[in-house]
Amino acid sequence: MPDAGSLIYNCWYVAAWSHEVTSAPLARTLLGRPVVLYRTLAGSVVALEDRCCHRAAPLSLGRCEGDNLRCMYHGLLFDPSGKCIEVPHQARVPETFRVRRYPLAERDRLIWIWPGDPAKADVSAVPDAHWLNDPGWRAKPGYLHYQANYRLIIDNLLDFSHLTYVHPTTLGSPAIAAAKPEVERTSAGVRVTRRYPAIDPVPFHAKVGGFTGKVDMWQIYDWLAPAMISMDAGSAPAGEGAPSRRPASAIQFHHLSMITPETERTSHYFFAQPRDFALDDAQMDETVFAQVITAFNEDRAMIEGQQRIIDLTPQVPLRTMAIDRALVEARNRIEAMLAEDAAMAERAA
Amino acid sequence: MPDAGSLIYNCWYVAAWSHEVTSAPLARTLLGRPVVLYRTLAGSVVALEDRCCHRAAPLSLGRCEGDNLRCMYHGLLFDPSGKCIEVPHQARVPETFRVRRYPLAERDRLIWIWPGDPAKADVSAVPDAHWLNDPGWRAKPGYLHYQANYRLIIDNLLDFSHLTYVHPTTLGSPAIAAAKPEVERTSAGVRVTRRYPAIDPVPFHAKVGGFTGKVDMWQIYDWLAPAMISMDAGSAPAGEGAPSRRPASAIQFHHLSMITPETERTSHYFFAQPRDFALDDAQMDETVFAQVITAFNEDRAMIEGQQRIIDLTPQVPLRTMAIDRALVEARNRIEAMLAEDAAMAERAA
Amino acid sequence: MPDAGSLIYNCWYVAAWSHEVTSAPLARTLLGRPVVLYRTLAGSVVALEDRCCHRAAPLSLGRCEGDNLRCMYHGLLFDPSGKCIEVPHQARVPETFRVRRYPLAERDRLIWIWPGDPAKADVSAVPDAHWLNDPGWRAKPGYLHYQANYRLIIDNLLDFSHLTYVHPTTLGSPAIAAAKPEVERTSAGVRVTRRYPAIDPVPFHAKVGGFTGKVDMWQIYDWLAPAMISMDAGSAPAGEGAPSRRPASAIQFHHLSMITPETERTSHYFFAQPRDFALDDAQMDETVFAQVITAFNEDRAMIEGQQRIIDLTPQVPLRTMAIDRALVEARNRIEAMLAEDAAMAERAA
Repeated sequence: MPDAGSLIYNCWYVAAWSHEVTSAPLARTLLGRPVVLYRTLAGSVVALEDRCCHRAAPLSLGRCEGDNLRCMYHGLLFDPSGKCIEVPHQARVPETFRVRRYPLAERDRLIWIWPGDPAKADVSAVPDAHWLNDPGWRAKPGYLHYQANYRLIIDNLLDFSHLTYVHPTTLGSPAIAAAKPEVERTSAGVRVTRRYPAIDPVPFHAKVGGFTGKVDMWQIYDWLAPAMISMDAGSAPAGEGAPSRRPASAIQFHHLSMITPETERTSHYFFAQPRDFALDDAQMDETVFAQVITAFNEDRAMIEGQQRIIDLTPQVPLRTMAIDRALVEARNRIEAMLAEDAAMAERAA
Repeated sequence: MPDAGSLIYNCWYVAAWSHEVTSAPLARTLLGRPVVLYRTLAGSVVALEDRCCHRAAPLSLGRCEGDNLRCMYHGLLFDPSGKCIEVPHQARVPETFRVRRYPLAERDRLIWIWPGDPAKADVSAVPDAHWLNDPGWRAKPGYLHYQANYRLIIDNLLDFSHLTYVHPTTLGSPAIAAAKPEVERTSAGVRVTRRYPAIDPVPFHAKVGGFTGKVDMWQIYDWLAPAMISMDAGSAPAGEGAPSRRPASAIQFHHLSMITPETERTSHYFFAQPRDFALDDAQMDETVFAQVITAFNEDRAMIEGQQRIIDLTPQVPLRTMAIDRALVEARNRIEAMLAEDAAMAERAA
Repeated sequence: MPDAGSLIYNCWYVAAWSHEVTSAPLARTLLGRPVVLYRTLAGSVVALEDRCCHRAAPLSLGRCEGDNLRCMYHGLLFDPSGKCIEVPHQARVPETFRVRRYPLAERDRLIWIWPGDPAKADVSAVPDAHWLNDPGWRAKPGYLHYQANYRLIIDNLLDFSHLTYVHPTTLGSPAIAAAKPEVERTSAGVRVTRRYPAIDPVPFHAKVGGFTGKVDMWQIYDWLAPAMISMDAGSAPAGEGAPSRRPASAIQFHHLSMITPETERTSHYFFAQPRDFALDDAQMDETVFAQVITAFNEDRAMIEGQQRIIDLTPQVPLRTMAIDRALVEARNRIEAMLAEDAAMAERAA
């Protein structure tokens, strides 16, 4: 799990929140590689190898000049394609003077990057995160840094069985623990559905939804391989058909978690918890964010603990329990993607 | 010396002071392995592998439930034998669901652990430290963490010749430097005896013993292989037969140092300096402790310096001087124990 | 570049500024080796292996006794040749009891050390730094620690093309960027000459030189392989023949930078900027030093950034641009010295 070679390159990852990328170059290590991100005059985002082809100086210590990025060590100027277009005191710029440019897509307040073979990058395959940019929804963007391999985080996100133990005072109510999840393979990954029909609303939902009687609550988790969770959740008055229908009286959340490996042993974690109510209430942003970050910090303590233990005992096998079906599906899918990724790299070489 | 493979598993080590282990699980790395310690309702101590067999979560982040320990990631419950007795949402618990349980003995305010083959663990072989738990003696427990391989610490403890240089203002008086030690091999290790007949009492002994004339002072060091020192020391009025006899007018100390490798390059150091006088004097605890910790910090600076130099120059040989007889005995004994330990591990495999 | 094996042993390096070495032993890691420096009663400097031959204790934790150095672990006493001349409680000192002594030369307020074969150490080859110790010049000694291989620092020092980009507000004026350097191989390394005839004086030169009209400015850089820069620079009223002649109305600097590898990835950087004017002005020391240290910290951010990027992408090749002629000369020379150094070591073995 923490062994070398767990990284899948041919897929879309979040490189940054949109607001992080400006005309001041941003350095970020993604899948073990140094990347620099900046914004052109017209506002589009560029991701280049953060390594001048001349002497390996970080371009992130450089300066944007219009749409181009100048290395501030010796002045080489790179255009947004990664091509060097100016070498000081030299008339001709050799063809070999270029840095890698990564395919990018800016969507829904997120910057997505494709670290793999550029020929395979298909922007239509960028995962849907429109809730981040829809007037009917509102959320505060979040980020955490993890000292752990990304798969340990995915395990955690796919696994409802930890809620009772890790989050006893927040997410782990007995009703949630008792609900039997439906797990199904999807084209994009794995879907886990939990329905809680005709229950007393959880206190927070009762308060913000104004529910006075029983509610139907739901959680529909989509794991989008390899490293994203998109969860539809909410409550509606019992008997109004939720979650198949969404009556106006429902309150809904659409949680998004996007993990990007930084290295084999560290991860970037981008997240948000859009809601479809209290859309003018900035204080509600903080209330919802605080709930999420509290739970995530509980998870992080456990996950970084796992990584520490695995580092001490790398040879010992892990065991699987009955409730791990979604997790096993996910691990198998990741293994298949890794094999495919390796084959792609071999063909490209 | 700092090379890999210096750890001996088949013997008793101190895992903790008794007071450190409660129903709140304690994490400690011992001989490179993650261990969790907790106390049952009846008060007995349990040491388990600090690694849930399911997904390697640290059990030390778990919770005691009666005599059992629950992993607070996914709720597996382990009994004091290391057997998993409950897997949430699953009727049957597979036989393979267990974690290693380490043989333990709680004696004399210390928790002793046997990291090796459990079949070889013989509690009758736990070293004697009764001075820690005897109404005729009194001491404050001590602990230091070392950035050094345990053998460098053993060398230091076995070697009186450093006293003059490392502790010139505390233990290294000229009288001590001049005394010729008797070194003898014992069944348990090496004994070094130093007698100082009819000397002026050292100032501290004079003060606490009320000596007005000459004294016979002694130090009888027992190195108990591989990593414990048990030292009998004191002063008595000259001519009363000490150390063979112990007149009521004598003052005695029984120093104990127990080193437990944490990893190849770091060590736990448990120590205490029981005395047989001023048994109602809490201030005397601090006075004696302060003397010991001052000397130990002097040692630690030198020993961690050695480790740093050895890390820079791993190939350079060490030399032996005449006065190193006890140290050489100890190193040879450790080598023999290592060979025996490896053979035991091979037979067990 | 950051690969193992970039260190050249058979040459002179600065180990310390003279004022750093006293009768209190100084520990310093030089070319990956622990070295201790101290001063004898007569004031001469001794450099020994900082590793007692007995048990590898750092001699730098020891004590000077007259001209000798005593290990304060077990009391072995070493004379300035590295020979052990006293082993406590032992009549005979074995021949093998010695530590390595490094050839040294103290010159011009600097302590030079020869880490290679002592038989090859020729004090007449110690580089000239007399400006540090000449009544006609004055400077404040400087030191920086770098998290980078020494060759990245040499590259920086040999390369004027970075001035415009890294030091735009200090050294990188357009006039400097425009001047075409003359690069010539010398017996000691590479010389880069830049002449700026009949220019407006740079503001600082105008101020301290009292120039009212045009000046001839010059910079003559000598790279003395492998790791020293000796630069003659200044301004004189235009047409008085500078830099071939040095009229009394000229102001001159003689910059010195001496880099000593600490390890493959870290470096000691000793520097000073002697001047031939304002010789009684202590405030001017600070003014000149502040200019240099500001520029050096700009360089350091970039160079340590390079090292970080190279660590992430060790396989990627570097490219050379037209302006890198001096740098390429230097790299080739270093490669030749490394080969020669390896051959010397082989012959010695």
